[in-house]
Order: sequence, then C-alpha cells, then structure tokens
Amino acid sequence: MLAGSSIGQRLVLTSFGESHGKSIGAVLDGCPAGLEIDEKDIQKMLDLRKPGQSLISTQRKEGDIVQIISGVFRGYTTGAPITMVIQNADQKSLDYENLKTKLRPGHSDYPAMIKYNHFNDYRGGGRFSGRLTATHVMGGAIARKLLKVTLGVQTNSFTTQIGKIKMENKFNDKMINSIYKNEVRCPEENTAKKMKEAILDARKKRDSLGGIIESVSTNLPVGIGDPIFGSLESDLSKALFSIPSVKGIEFGSGFEGSKLYGSENNDEYTIKKGKIITKTNNSGGILGGISNGMPITIRIAFKPASSIAQTQNTVDMKTKKDTTLEVKGRHDPCVVPRAPPVVDALVSLTLADHAILAGAIKSTL
Amino acid sequence: MLAGSSIGQRLVLTSFGESHGKSIGAVLDGCPAGLEIDEKDIQKMLDLRKPGQSLISTQRKEGDIVQIISGVFRGYTTGAPITMVIQNADQKSLDYENLKTKLRPGHSDYPAMIKYNHFNDYRGGGRFSGRLTATHVMGGAIARKLLKVTLGVQTNSFTTQIGKIKMENKFNDKMINSIYKNEVRCPEENTAKKMKEAILDARKKRDSLGGIIESVSTNLPVGIGDPIFGSLESDLSKALFSIPSVKGIEFGSGFEGSKLYGSENNDEYTIKKGKIITKTNNSGGILGGISNGMPITIRIAFKPASSIAQTQNTVDMKTKKDTTLEVKGRHDPCVVPRAPPVVDALVSLTLADHAILAGAIKSTL
Amino acid sequence: MLAGSSIGQRLVLTSFGESHGKSIGAVLDGCPAGLEIDEKDIQKMLDLRKPGQSLISTQRKEGDIVQIISGVFRGYTTGAPITMVIQNADQKSLDYENLKTKLRPGHSDYPAMIKYNHFNDYRGGGRFSGRLTATHVMGGAIARKLLKVTLGVQTNSFTTQIGKIKMENKFNDKMINSIYKNEVRCPEENTAKKMKEAILDARKKRDSLGGIIESVSTNLPVGIGDPIFGSLESDLSKALFSIPSVKGIEFGSGFEGSKLYGSENNDEYTIKKGKIITKTNNSGGILGGISNGMPITIRIAFKPASSIAQTQNTVDMKTKKDTTLEVKGRHDPCVVPRAPPVVDALVSLTLADHAILAGAIKSTL
Amino acid sequence: MLAGSSIGQRLVLTSFGESHGKSIGAVLDGCPAGLEIDEKDIQKMLDLRKPGQSLISTQRKEGDIVQIISGVFRGYTTGAPITMVIQNADQKSLDYENLKTKLRPGHSDYPAMIKYNHFNDYRGGGRFSGRLTATHVMGGAIARKLLKVTLGVQTNSFTTQIGKIKMENKFNDKMINSIYKNEVRCPEENTAKKMKEAILDARKKRDSLGGIIESVSTNLPVGIGDPIFGSLESDLSKALFSIPSVKGIEFGSGFEGSKLYGSENNDEYTIKKGKIITKTNNSGGILGGISNGMPITIRIAFKPASSIAQTQNTVDMKTKKDTTLEVKGRHDPCVVPRAPPVVDALVSLTLADHAILAGAIKSTL
Repeated sequence: MLAGSSIGQRLVLTSFGESHGKSIGAVLDGCPAGLEIDEKDIQKMLDLRKPGQSLISTQRKEGDIVQIISGVFRGYTTGAPITMVIQNADQKSLDYENLKTKLRPGHSDYPAMIKYNHFNDYRGGGRFSGRLTATHVMGGAIARKLLKVTLGVQTNSFTTQIGKIKMENKFNDKMINSIYKNEVRCPEENTAKKMKEAILDARKKRDSLGGIIESVSTNLPVGIGDPIFGSLESDLSKALFSIPSVKGIEFGSGFEGSKLYGSENNDEYTIKKGKIITKTNNSGGILGGISNGMPITIRIAFKPASSIAQTQNTVDMKTKKDTTLEVKGRHDPCVVPRAPPVVDALVSLTLADHAILAGAIKSTL
Repeated sequence: MLAGSSIGQRLVLTSFGESHGKSIGAVLDGCPAGLEIDEKDIQKMLDLRKPGQSLISTQRKEGDIVQIISGVFRGYTTGAPITMVIQNADQKSLDYENLKTKLRPGHSDYPAMIKYNHFNDYRGGGRFSGRLTATHVMGGAIARKLLKVTLGVQTNSFTTQIGKIKMENKFNDKMINSIYKNEVRCPEENTAKKMKEAILDARKKRDSLGGIIESVSTNLPVGIGDPIFGSLESDLSKALFSIPSVKGIEFGSGFEGSKLYGSENNDEYTIKKGKIITKTNNSGGILGGISNGMPITIRIAFKPASSIAQTQNTVDMKTKKDTTLEVKGRHDPCVVPRAPPVVDALVSLTLADHAILAGAIKSTL
Repeated sequence: MLAGSSIGQRLVLTSFGESHGKSIGAVLDGCPAGLEIDEKDIQKMLDLRKPGQSLISTQRKEGDIVQIISGVFRGYTTGAPITMVIQNADQKSLDYENLKTKLRPGHSDYPAMIKYNHFNDYRGGGRFSGRLTATHVMGGAIARKLLKVTLGVQTNSFTTQIGKIKMENKFNDKMINSIYKNEVRCPEENTAKKMKEAILDARKKRDSLGGIIESVSTNLPVGIGDPIFGSLESDLSKALFSIPSVKGIEFGSGFEGSKLYGSENNDEYTIKKGKIITKTNNSGGILGGISNGMPITIRIAFKPASSIAQTQNTVDMKTKKDTTLEVKGRHDPCVVPRAPPVVDALVSLTLADHAILAGAIKSTL
Repeated sequence: MLAGSSIGQRLVLTSFGESHGKSIGAVLDGCPAGLEIDEKDIQKMLDLRKPGQSLISTQRKEGDIVQIISGVFRGYTTGAPITMVIQNADQKSLDYENLKTKLRPGHSDYPAMIKYNHFNDYRGGGRFSGRLTATHVMGGAIARKLLKVTLGVQTNSFTTQIGKIKMENKFNDKMINSIYKNEVRCPEENTAKKMKEAILDARKKRDSLGGIIESVSTNLPVGIGDPIFGSLESDLSKALFSIPSVKGIEFGSGFEGSKLYGSENNDEYTIKKGKIITKTNNSGGILGGISNGMPITIRIAFKPASSIAQTQNTVDMKTKKDTTLEVKGRHDPCVVPRAPPVVDALVSLTLADHAILAGAIKSTL
C-alpha cells in the first residue's frame, strides 16, 4: 500500500504498468462476491476515456481492449481479486529517446530521474503517464456498478470549465444524458462548442489548455465515512490527486464558500417527503467527514497539459547548462475531456470502499 | 489505521479524545530515535493555536498544557511511540444538552447521530470538534522539528484571506517573522487590521467568516513522494482535509492555473548557482507527486464557522418536524486565525513521513 | 501501523509506554458504538495478569489501575477511539543502571542498543518489557466483551504445560471454571500443584521455566477470515508473536499433525442436530484461513524467562570484551501463569477485527 | 491490503489468480530501483517448486512460464511495481464438478461456500489452492536476490522431517548444496531416501504425509525488525501461515525450548573475531522482535495433504445429509518437498521489507 501503487482500505485497487511497457493493468481486491460483471462493463467506461477520438485529443491510438484474467467466474465476482489487463500496442518510444537528459517543463522527468537515479522507464512518462489512469477506470467501472446495484448511487462527472470558458447554468439531473453527447463532455451544448473551439485554437497555437471537472454522486446513504483522518473528503482527495494534472479539489461551495458569511454558507435542514434534507448543498454532501444524504459534489482543477509543441527553455541534466527543448510526438491539447470517466472511477472506488466499511454494502451480495 | 484516528505510513499519528471528555491526546509512532525534544517544543506550537487570546476568537479558555507520558527519555526520543496528553478543563457541557435532537446547520450532528445511532458523545461536537486539531499540533510540532533539524525544512503557514479581504502581495521569506505579530496571523500589517475588523464586524452581526490559509515549505530535497496514490498531493490533502471546516485545497497555481495556457503555466528550468531550479513555481514544488526542490505551496479554503448566534431554521430529529434553533455558547466568529499551526502540523507530519520513507531522514538519528 | 505499535485492520489497537516510564496505555480505534463498557470490565482482566500475587511470580507490585480517558460516554462506547491509561508506580530504575553496557542474555538489550543507537529507554526492558502486555489486555478486554455480547464467542486460555509437566487430559468446557482456581492457571488441580512446585524449585535454583498456553474460542461463526495473507492463522500468529517470550505457535494438531497420515489428520464432516460439524478438530477450526465453525484452538510456546539470578557469561558493549553478569532485581521465575489473559486479549482482538470485516459484527450495535 | 491478497509494508506483494482460472500472477510494489533482474531469476526458483517432477508429487503438469509485464526496463528494476504472470494451462476442471456440494475433509470448501455464498470459484480449490504459492515465489525470487546483492543475506530452506522420519544431524552451511540433490529437498542423502520411500508408500496406500521445513537465513544485520506488533516473528509468521497446509511455526528452540530452564535456553554472548555473537542460537536470531545478527532459524509444520484417494465420510451441502466421497484427480501424496522455495520466498519478502524499513536497504540502489 505504501509504495504508492495501491489505494483503498477494504476495496483495494492496485495499479501497474508504464506508458510504453508491455501492458498496463489493475488488481481490485475486496470486491464483494456475487456482483454480475463482464468485460463489456469495463470496456464501455474505458472507451469513454480513450484518446484518438477526435481532433481535440492526441492522435495516438490506444486499442485499450481490457481482459479480465482473474476473480470472475461464470459472470460473477467470486470474492477473489479481479485482475484486468490491457496490452500496450501503439508505442513510438523512439520519440522520447532524445529527452533522456533534457527536462520537460511541467513533467515529472526531473524528480523521477533524481529519485530513481535514472533507472526509471522514461519513455512516454513511464509510470507517471496519464495513460495509467486507464487502470483507475478498470477498477472504478466495477466499483461504480457495485454502488449502483446495491445502493442506487449514481456518479456522474462532466467538464464545467475549459480555460476561461465556463458552464452558464448549475448542473441538474436532466443534464446527465447530455454529458457524452459532445467531445468535451460538457452537458451544455453551446458551451461545449465554445470549449471545443478554444481547444482547437490552443492546438493551432501549439499550446494547451486546462479546465475543471465537476462530479456529482446521488443516493449515497447518510453515515458513510469516518471522522478525522478517515473523512470522505480526505479519502476522495487522496484518490483524485493521484490523477496527473490535478492541482486543486473543492467540495460543495469550496473556495467560494470561504468568502461567505456562516449564515449564507450553512445549509439549513428541512423535511421533504418525510426525509431530512438540506435546502442548499454548500457542504457538498459531507459534514464532519461523513455523508449527510445530499449529493456528493466535487470540483477538480486540471492544469493545462505540460506537453506542448512550442520551444521551451530548460536545462540539460548532463551538461548542467541552460538549453531549449522542442517536444515532438502526439500531444493532447487538453486532457480534461478525457477525464470524466477517470473522476467517476476514483470517486466510485472511494465511496464503495467506505460503504463496505460502514456495512452499507455487504461483503457478499 | 482504518477507523480514521490514525494517519501516516511510517510516521503514524493517532489522535484520541472528545471536546468535552476527560482529555485529548496523540500518539506519534515511528519518530526516529535521537531527536532532542521536550514539552516546551510542543507547548509553544499549541499556544499559537489556543483560543481565548483575543476578542476575535471564542472566549472558552483552554489551558491546553501538554504532558509527554511516553517515548521521550532524558530529553531525546527513544524510537518508542511518543504519547502526549492534555487534560480537558473548562467544559460547559450543559450548553449542549438542548441540542441533542435539534440539528445544527453545518455541523456533523445529523450524520453522526445516524452513523452512531445516538451513542456518539454530542457535547461540544464530541469527536468532530475543532478542538481535536490540538492533537494534530502535538504530533506536528515534533515532525516540524524533525524536518528542521535533519533537512533544514522550514514550514510556515499564514492567513492570506478572511472573507473577501485578501493579502495584496505575494508571500516572501521576509514576511515569516511577521506572521504571528497580529491576531489574524497575516504577515501584511494593513491587511491584518482589515481582517480583524471584518471578524469583529461578523461577531457583532452574530455571524461568522471563513478564509484561506497558505502554507510554504522550503528546502525539501528533490525526490520525496511516491507516484500515483502515494503522491505528496494525495497525502498532503488527505491530512489537511481532516481539519474540520476545510473544503478546498490547491497546490501551486491550482484553480487559477486551470485557466492558463500550458505555455503560461509550465515552469521552465534554469541553472542558478549550479543548482537546477524552475523560474516560476506554478507546480507548488510537486511534479508527478514528487518534490522537485522548489517550495511546497498549498492554499487551504476554510468555510465560515458553522456555529453562529443567529436563529436558524432546522429540523427536530425526534418530532421529524421543521423548527428553529438558537445555538448558545461561546463561538469563534472565525477559526482561520487559529489554523496556521494546525496546517503547519499536518504538512510537517506528511513531509516527514515521506522523507523517512524515501530514506532522506534516517530511522535513528 | 508500520512502526510496530499498532495492530488490526478495522479494530486497531495502539499500544504505548515503557516499563519504567510515566505510564502505559492503549488506544482502541474502530470499536462499534453502543457497547456497554466500564473500567471494571477491563480492570477485572488486568487483575488476572497482575504480578505480585504469589511466590511464583515477581514481587514487583503493579497497582495497574486502569482509567478510561476517551471513547466511552455514559457507559457506552461512542465509536470514537477508546483510550486507557495506567500510571506506572513501583519503579526501581536504579536496579538497571549497571546494565547499560553489559548485555543480558535472552533479552533485547543488544539489538535495541544497536537499532536505536543507545537512545532507547533501557530501564526494565523499556519498550520491550513484558509489562507492555498489560496494554494488550486493556484493548482485549473490550474485544472479548464485544465478541461475547454480539456473537456469543467464548475465549478461554490456560496453562497446559510448565517445563516438562503437562496436563494429562484434553481440555473440555467443564474445565473453564477451574482455570483461575490456582496460581498457575491450569484447570487440572493435581497438575497445577506439580507445576507450582516446579516453579518454586526453579526459583530456588535461581533459574526460570517456560511452558505452553492453550487457547480455545467457541461459537465463532463459519466464514470469518480472509484467504491467503488475511488468514486467521496469519493474523492470530502476528498478534500472538508480539508477546515477549513467545517462540512457537500451532493451530489444531500443529506439529504433531505433521507426523500423521492425511486419513488420520483430516476432519470428517457429519451432521449433528442439523448442523454441519467435523468429528475431530485437527484443523483448529480454521480451513483455508477461514473459520469453519469448530472451536479455534491454538497452542503457544513460551521460552523460559530470560531474567535469571544466576551469574551468566556475556559481553561488555563498551570494552567489547567477555565478562560476567549477575542480574539483580525482582524476576518472574515463570511468566506463563500470567499469560492466559494476554493470550485471551490478542485472540479476541484478532477475531473481533475479522468478525467486523466480515460483517458478522455491525459497525454500530 | 485488507482483503487478504497483499502482504508487506514498504515492499508489498499482491497475489492474484485461481487454480483453474486464466492465469495467476503477482505484483511486487516498492522494490528499489536499480536491481538487475530478469525472468530467468524468477523462473529458476519457480522450477524448484513445480510439480510433476517425479513420482512423489502430483502428475499435473504446470508449465509455469513466468512473464514480467511491468516494472523492469533494460534489465533493471525501475521503482515501479513489477508484475509477473503465468498462464494457466493444464486444467481438468471437470474433475471437480461433482464436488460442488460434497465437502472435501481438510479443504476450505465448506467455509468458502458459506463465506462467498457459492460464488467462489471452487475448481481445484480456486483461490485457496496451493498453486497460488507460485505467486509468492515470483515475488520472493526478487526479494531474495535483493537481500543477497545488497546485504549478502542467504536464505535456505529444506525438508527436515516427512511423517515420522527426521534428519539425524543439525543443519550446517556445508549442507546447502545438497538440498536440491534429491526430490525431497533434504540435505541428508540417507534420510532423503527414507523420506522418499515413505512418500511412495503413502501414495500406494492412497494416503498422504506431512512434514517439517526448516529455514535458515544468515548475514542479516543487527537491528532489523520493530518491537511488539512489528516484530520479525510477527511478520514472518503472518507471511508463512499464508501457505495452505502450514499449521505450526517456531523460531529457534521453539516448543522444545519451552521445556528448558532459562539457564539452558539463554544464549550467552561472546566476542568472536571482534564481533559480538551468541554461543548458541536458541533465540533463532531474534530478540525482542529484532534481529541480533545470528542466523534466523524457523521451523514450519505442514499437515498431510488433505486430498487423498481414499473414500472419506462427509456431508452433502445440498441434502444436508451424511454421505461418502471419493476425490478423484491427481494429488500430491506430500506437498512438503515442493515447499522449500515457497518458504524461501516468504522469508525473503519479509526480511527485505524490514531491511528497507530499517534503512539497511536503500530505496534506490
């Protein structure tokens, strides 16, 4: 758990592989026995993350065909660890050979070289590549189905901002079906168009853009999460900050809420159809680290992709001198549109883990 | 570790106690043997967090005298777990008796009652009280000294925003000595005055304010942290979201960075005095989850304190009907000025833990 | 968890303190809310472990009065960590000053000095003292009650061998009430007498004896435990080997079973009163790491106490030369009679933890 | 970590797969970067465990060709998780179809069916099969090499007893090369012959035998291990009890030592060639949970294999009635001869993990 490739307490995801290695994969341990699952459930979610779908993302084609090699028997989970593997295919490793000593700004090259004394696999970012988020999606697809089947939890994530272009309205349930209707994964059609233009414009400038993903999970029962270090906020943020490019996370009213008065930010309780709810949801569904029955709402800030086609100033590790660098290869001008399934995956893994710990999901279905 | 009262991997803090129980305390396991430490080191940091210091915080007086009851022998850590205890004193538990069924907006009362089926100690927030952050400070004071003595790491946190009032300049090293010169812990004297007025004004309105803390850690060596789920961002955020009221965290350029172009946000490398540095620090000192030698910079958003003296709408758990509530007792109109030592503590614990794991701090000094 | 002072996964015991420090104690995190508990429940079990009860154990008098300082409210557990503390009293630390450099055979002195570079608290064995098993008993008393109240599990441990003197008959349920009728905790009266004589004889010879404890837990439901690394055998042995002096552990037929044929050692199934049982219990109630509904039976070998009053050959760390050593102070000629409550405690902690993980004990009662 | 498929703290092995599934494999996370390793290192150790090598083990042929699919780059470990996979081949799953409801004595069938509500993969024991120990060997081969290259640690395990036939002499270093000269892995040639005859005789009787493996590790530095719950004995036993069939473990003089006087069992210190050693090694190289520089000696008791060809009495889960059972298929009359590499693997994994934690092995070589 310690060495960084695993996450979770009772539902544990272990990720393995490198960008240009033989394969990448995930082991999901602790999934309750008796969940109906097959490769299609996972493939469907992987396909939503896949690059090469349009002009706005990298032209690298990742086949990304998942194969389950353990833990599922006759269509149901067995209680044993579920292992899923994708063979890596379209690797152009030679693109990276000339980057062995010139440090790419914004990338992990420099700290990785120092930490691993140059033994790390640097090709395509190696272990640090965004490609590894496919392993999160593999495990997350199962967790998401588990939450849906057992508790009716619905997790949906979408693009709410690209560069400076923001959604105009607040997200509501009716927008769910519109998320994947466009390439940027923004449920507002007009905003999506503007976002796409902004990305294409950035690509033209040989530059990149960042943005913000919003995630909403409904139907989580009251009482999930532990106080203090086991808070939902602690564990959700730990999971989400594992995504390369993520540099900020907020729950509910978040940074904006810090500017309000308590009387404005507090969510008053009321009774609706016999159920205790809050009139507003500035808490993002979490109080004291524990779910209060309202939707879990999270906003996740992605920095603009570090790989850009422009010439940049940098340092040559070998000569220890200033130099310039032009990174060739195929780059995503914006990774945000590919991120919603990754966010869904990590949110689902965390919520399912805590639901198991709280006894809300049984250890065998 | 799982049940939420412990954090860390090799340097493990376990927190115990409730707001109105007999005592609160912390066990710090895994601290290297041979660190010179005494109660004054801890008391000094605790005193900076203590309430009752001025009009801008709660009038509850917490003696908060720490006693080390294990793990230190003849002035040095022994390698055994270090246990620190504070006796609780000034408890007015009766203030809370009438709140047993009326839910306080913004507090953990409701999810806690459901989760623990009313067995939780509700007095003063019980286990969920901000008072428990004193246990973080106990452990963090040791971690902070450990980092300083072994690696020269300096961690400083300060108030950068209260409500809508922000610092005007970027923080720099020269400001360090000004942080604790005022009650709001803001190194800009003029801004501090305005912040104080805003807090006093909120108190007058029987309301509360939130704000933002910034944390800067210098001198952390390159290569600390693990990729993916063991990233510094993952573990720092997990620790910091354990603070009640924290609803947002960002590293480096964070949410603002998500609006920039890659060419603007990327930190270019250069050589300065023979050392590789970056010209800017939009990454907050962390690339791929690993330290790159630049200052670790974090911004933490605190919601306005949930306890306000105004009448609020809420629900009575017993009658399941709408009602109103007036929370009596002594409240902090703003907890942010008390938070810098808590942030210092959790940042130090996390960085020290990772420095030990990376071998940068030896297991015996 | 890593640094060695904590055990358990969802029910986590953290032990702190040293033999001659200010106090020793335990934090039990993850105990379900709603368990009726008070200090008497714990004190009762602690008293059974207490030395100074007769000629056959050390004359050191340990008051060992436990105080609960967190986690219990109005007589019930709250779900928050339960902290229990004993003030150390009767310390004669001067006895140990002359042992700072002369290594006591059989003790941890040598590896501890090297590991901690002489910073460890060496007085009375410090962190390595058998006295710390009182912290296991504190947590274990709660776990034992939890198992009894929720599942009807009964855990009993007793002395089955002292030196070469063994019990003549197999343990059965009727013997339970006889365990604590004598000082050696052996349910066979005649054997107990012989054991006592052997211990008194060893004391006269300024020597010590070891022995074997047997532990039997009934009523654990089928299906508790995880396969492979989470097996009951793995986790029970991990817990039990934390007791100083324990050098061997076997389940069911154990070492003797390794001499049998499969046809002799296999436990055949049958139906008794509509329930599936096995005719014999050579498996010790555990198959594939998981409980099969039969009693969990464990045998634990204790080496003879290392502290003996005879002159022994050893080495002086300072001079790096051979020397002799006479260890003064008050020694247990045999620690085995004090161990049954410690074994009960660790078995209970492990079984309760796994019962919680398997959902057999709910997270709130 | 919790769900039972992972072990270790900083060097973490995750095992996956089932006896008759598509494949089995292991992920080793936390291995220091810079260790030269290739598939041959692992294959060599796997081959020593392989069945089908002679008349004394099962005739099932397991190709067991290992493939490294991540974590190694240009012949060296990278610091990323190392994933190793074996494709399962020779499966005769139909043999097991008739066992779906008839419980095999000594096997995990019954608790597994109850625990997983019949969703577990029962074919060939599924997740509980001894075949999974091949995944331990995969990870252990790397750990063993790591210990050898960095610290010169040598771990060797051998058969010391089969049924009632024991080795006549104590093991010494000169015997190391004789271990694998015969099929039973016993370094005494004459004893090995008798053991083989006993196994062949048991096979003729359609029965099975158990035995004892001894493990000796030399050159481990002083000071490895943590006190109390992190003791070497705790962690070694946790690892070793994960092997199916293991029912007893002892260190040093173990159960025999419990019959001795302290004056007999204590290991006196002396100086030899300027180094502190003990004259005897009844402690098995571990004092207070920490290595003392002497060889780590462990004895591990294996029950006779549960699968025997004789007709046995049992219960039919469906009818809930007594019945008889004849287990067809290919059985090992004795699994002990295949176990030494498995013991080597688990001992190496545990010692390497603790050596990393203690800083004796660096996180990058």
